Amino acid sequence: MPLLGLLPRRAWASLLSQLLRPPCASCTGAVRCQSQVAEAVLTSQLKAHQEKPNFIIKTPKGTRDLSPQHMVVREKILDLVISCFKRHGAKGMDTPAFELKVKKMKRYHVGKVWRRESPTIVQGRYREFCQCDFDIAGQFDPMIPDAECLKIMCEILSGLQLGDFLIKVNDRRIVDGMFAVCGVPESKFRAICSSIDKLDKMAWKDVRHEMVVKKGLAPEVADRIGDYVQCHGGVSLVEQMFQDPRLSQNKQALEGLGDLKLLFEYLTLFGIADKISFDLSLARGLDYYTGVIYEAVLLQTPTQAGEEPLNVGSVAAGGRYDGLVGMFDPKGHKVPCVGLSIGVERIFYIVEQRMKTKGEKVRTTETQVFVATPQKNFLQERLKLIAELWDSGIKAEMLYKNNPKLLTQLHYCESTGIPLVVIIGEQELKEGVIKIRSVASREEVAIKRENFVAEIQKRLSES
Amino acid sequence: MPLLGLLPRRAWASLLSQLLRPPCASCTGAVRCQSQVAEAVLTSQLKAHQEKPNFIIKTPKGTRDLSPQHMVVREKILDLVISCFKRHGAKGMDTPAFELKVKKMKRYHVGKVWRRESPTIVQGRYREFCQCDFDIAGQFDPMIPDAECLKIMCEILSGLQLGDFLIKVNDRRIVDGMFAVCGVPESKFRAICSSIDKLDKMAWKDVRHEMVVKKGLAPEVADRIGDYVQCHGGVSLVEQMFQDPRLSQNKQALEGLGDLKLLFEYLTLFGIADKISFDLSLARGLDYYTGVIYEAVLLQTPTQAGEEPLNVGSVAAGGRYDGLVGMFDPKGHKVPCVGLSIGVERIFYIVEQRMKTKGEKVRTTETQVFVATPQKNFLQERLKLIAELWDSGIKAEMLYKNNPKLLTQLHYCESTGIPLVVIIGEQELKEGVIKIRSVASREEVAIKRENFVAEIQKRLSES
Repeated sequence: MPLLGLLPRRAWASLLSQLLRPPCASCTGAVRCQSQVAEAVLTSQLKAHQEKPNFIIKTPKGTRDLSPQHMVVREKILDLVISCFKRHGAKGMDTPAFELKVKKMKRYHVGKVWRRESPTIVQGRYREFCQCDFDIAGQFDPMIPDAECLKIMCEILSGLQLGDFLIKVNDRRIVDGMFAVCGVPESKFRAICSSIDKLDKMAWKDVRHEMVVKKGLAPEVADRIGDYVQCHGGVSLVEQMFQDPRLSQNKQALEGLGDLKLLFEYLTLFGIADKISFDLSLARGLDYYTGVIYEAVLLQTPTQAGEEPLNVGSVAAGGRYDGLVGMFDPKGHKVPCVGLSIGVERIFYIVEQRMKTKGEKVRTTETQVFVATPQKNFLQERLKLIAELWDSGIKAEMLYKNNPKLLTQLHYCESTGIPLVVIIGEQELKEGVIKIRSVASREEVAIKRENFVAEIQKRLSES
Repeated sequence: MPLLGLLPRRAWASLLSQLLRPPCASCTGAVRCQSQVAEAVLTSQLKAHQEKPNFIIKTPKGTRDLSPQHMVVREKILDLVISCFKRHGAKGMDTPAFELKVKKMKRYHVGKVWRRESPTIVQGRYREFCQCDFDIAGQFDPMIPDAECLKIMCEILSGLQLGDFLIKVNDRRIVDGMFAVCGVPESKFRAICSSIDKLDKMAWKDVRHEMVVKKGLAPEVADRIGDYVQCHGGVSLVEQMFQDPRLSQNKQALEGLGDLKLLFEYLTLFGIADKISFDLSLARGLDYYTGVIYEAVLLQTPTQAGEEPLNVGSVAAGGRYDGLVGMFDPKGHKVPCVGLSIGVERIFYIVEQRMKTKGEKVRTTETQVFVATPQKNFLQERLKLIAELWDSGIKAEMLYKNNPKLLTQLHYCESTGIPLVVIIGEQELKEGVIKIRSVASREEVAIKRENFVAEIQKRLSES
C-alpha cells in the first residue's frame, strides 16, 4: 500500500518507526504482526482526517528514544572507536557471512543489535543495544594479533578519556590447568569458573562459600584455588607461575604461561605493558575461549588517601577463540580468531552521567556561521550569502523570517553555540563589504564582499 | 542466559545476528520467536561440542549481506548526505518523539528502517532498507524552508555525481484546483491523482485510457487534464498559469501558483533555478501533502542526437505537510513541516551498477602505511615502528608473521592499495634510518629514524 511506499515513508515512517518495530521472521506467517496493526491504526487515523488524536505513541519496552544531545555524545564515542579500528586496517563488515568463506581477515562491526533479556533499564542494559566488535581471523605467528587487540583497547580507552583503566589478562589454559592441579573435578570446571568470575564483585570468602556450599567443592580444593586467584601482577608473576610447583606440572598451563610471556614482550614494545595486569581471577566462563582472555576495567580515583582504586566495571573484553568459526564451516576447517568487544552502552552511560553531574552542555548542531541582518527587506541578500557559504562547504544557518530582529538573530547564535556571524545591512551593501562578528568576543570587522568566504574559511581553520 | 550476555555477544552475536532478527513486540508474548528458536539451536550446537555442522546460516528473505566493498560505497554516499544535512544546521534524531514536543526544528534521520512489503530484490527494494530524511518543522515565512529543501536536494545530487538531474515541482493545491476546474468529481480526486502519477512511466494516451475506461472519468474531462499535465517549464509557466482562463478562477490553485512564484525567486537567488521544472503532471498522490511537492529524477544522457533525455527514476522527493504532525499532538496544535527523503537505496544500486560496468575497484581498508622488513628477526623493530605510527594517528598495518618475505609484504601493499611502505632492516638499523617507499613509483628514500613519522605525515597531507 502506498502508505509505506517511497514517499509516505518520508514523514510517516519516522512517526511509524516506534510502532513499527522490525518484524521478526515468525510474524510474516499467520501471526498478525504489531507493525501491521500499527499501520492499520494509522491508516484509519489518516482517513478520519485530522480528528482529535486518541492514542499516544510509546517506545516498546526495553528500547528508548535518544535526544539529539545523546546522539551527539554517542556519535563522538563511536567515531573514535571506528577510527581506531580503521587505523588498525580493519574492514567494516555488516554481517558475518564472510567469516565463513575468508581464511584471513581483520574486520570490525559497529551497529545496533538486539538482545533477548528482560529489560532492566536502571542498569543501562537494553534489548536493543549498540555493539562494537573487532576481530582478527587467520593462521598467524603466536600472540602478534593478540597483542594488537590489547593495543586497540588501550588506544580506545585512552582516547575516550574515561580515566584510569587496567586490562586484566589471563589464559583459558591457565584457568583449566589451575583447576586441574587444585583438584577440581572436570565436571565442576564450568560451575567453578562462573564462581571465580564473580570475584570482581564479591569478596573471596563469599566466592569460597558459594564454591564449597552451593557447588560442593572440597574446602581444601577451594583454598588452593584461593591462593592462585588472589594473585595479580605483571610479567614477573608470569615468571613466578612458571616456577610454581603445582602449575608447572600442567602442560596446558605451561602453554598458556609461555604465550603470556611472549604477549608481555610485545606489549612492552607497544609501550602498554604498564596497563596490563596478569590476573589469575579472570576466568570469563565461556566455552568458546581457547587461549588468552582479557577484560578492561575502569579504576575509580580513590576518594581517600591509602584507599585502593575501585573497579567500576568492565568496559571492554575479548580473547582468543580458535574453535568457534570452524564449527560453522561446511568442511570443518578451523579458523583461529582473536577479538574484542567495546562495551559502548556502558561507556555511553558513564559519559552521560558525568556530563549530567558536571552540567556540561553539548552542541547538537555543527553550524559554523550565521547569516544576519540588522535591517528590514534583506532576505534576498541573506539568501545569496548563505548559498555562497553552503556552496563553499561551510555549515551555515539563518532565520526563516523575512524581517527578523537583530537581537533575535544574535540570541539564536548564543543559545545554539554558533561561533561566527556574517552581517549584511544597508551600510555594508553600499560599501561592498560584509561584517564578520565573533559571537564570543563580540568583535566585528568589515571584509570586502568578494573575500568574505575566504576570510571565514581562514578563521574556521584556525579555530 | 550467558550465551547472549556481554561477552558471548562478542563472537556469538555476530554469528547469531542473521538468525536473531530483531524480535517484534508481538513475539514477546505467547508466540515463540524465531530468535528464541535460533538461540536454542545454537546453544545445543555449542553443547554438542564442535561436532560437524548440520545447518547452514542464511539471511532472512528480503534482507542481504553486504560485502566490505558495498559497505564502503554506502558509507561514502551516506557521509555525503549527512554532511549536507549538517551543513544546513540539522540535528540528528533517532526517533520522532521530539517532533511532538518541539514547535521548531531542523532534523535529519539516517538509518535502517523496515518496510512491510513482499521483497522484489531485482528492483533493489528491500524490507530492510536505509532511509535518509530531512525535515524543517515550525511556523516560518513562506517558501524559505521549502527553497532550502530544494537547495539540499541539488547539493546532494550534484555532490554524488550521478549525472544530470532535474527536480520537478508542483503544488498540491494546484493539482486539486486543476482537477476542480477540469470537472473531476471530488470523489475521484484520489484515483485520478494516482493515474497522473504514472505519467513518468506511461504515455499520456495510456493514462487517459485508464482514467476514462477504468476510473469512469468523462473523456472531455480527461482531455482538459491532458492539456495541463503535459505542461512543464520554468517560472514563465507559473506566469502563464496565472493567466489561464480556468485555473485563474480557482482560489486554491492561485495560492499554489503564488507560492511557486515566490519559490522560484528564492531558487534563483540560490543559483539552482535551472535545475527546477514546474511540472503539472507531478501529483504525488498522498493525502498528507498540503503545499509544494517535488521529486528529483536522474536524466539519462541521450544515446542519439535529437533524443530527449530519459527519466531513469526518482532518487529524491518530498514536500510540505502542514497537517500531519498536529494529528499526533495531544492539544491538536498544528506544526507546519516541509521535508525531503533521499532515495539512497536506489542511489546505492545505481552507483554499484556503474562500478560493476566499469570494473572499478574499491579499497575496503584505509591503511596508509605498511611496516615491512627484508630480513629475518625484525619483528621487534616492526612492532616498535607500527606502535609509533598508530600513536601518531596513522593507519598502519604489518603482517602477523615473525619472518615474512619482502615480496609477500610488498605484494600485500599492492593488492590492498596501501600507498606507503616503511622498511627497516639491518642496514637501516645500523645507520639509524628508516626507508620510505612509494608503492606506486617504487621510489625509496632513507629518512632519519627520529623524523620518519613527521615525513610520513607530510606525505599523507600532500596526497
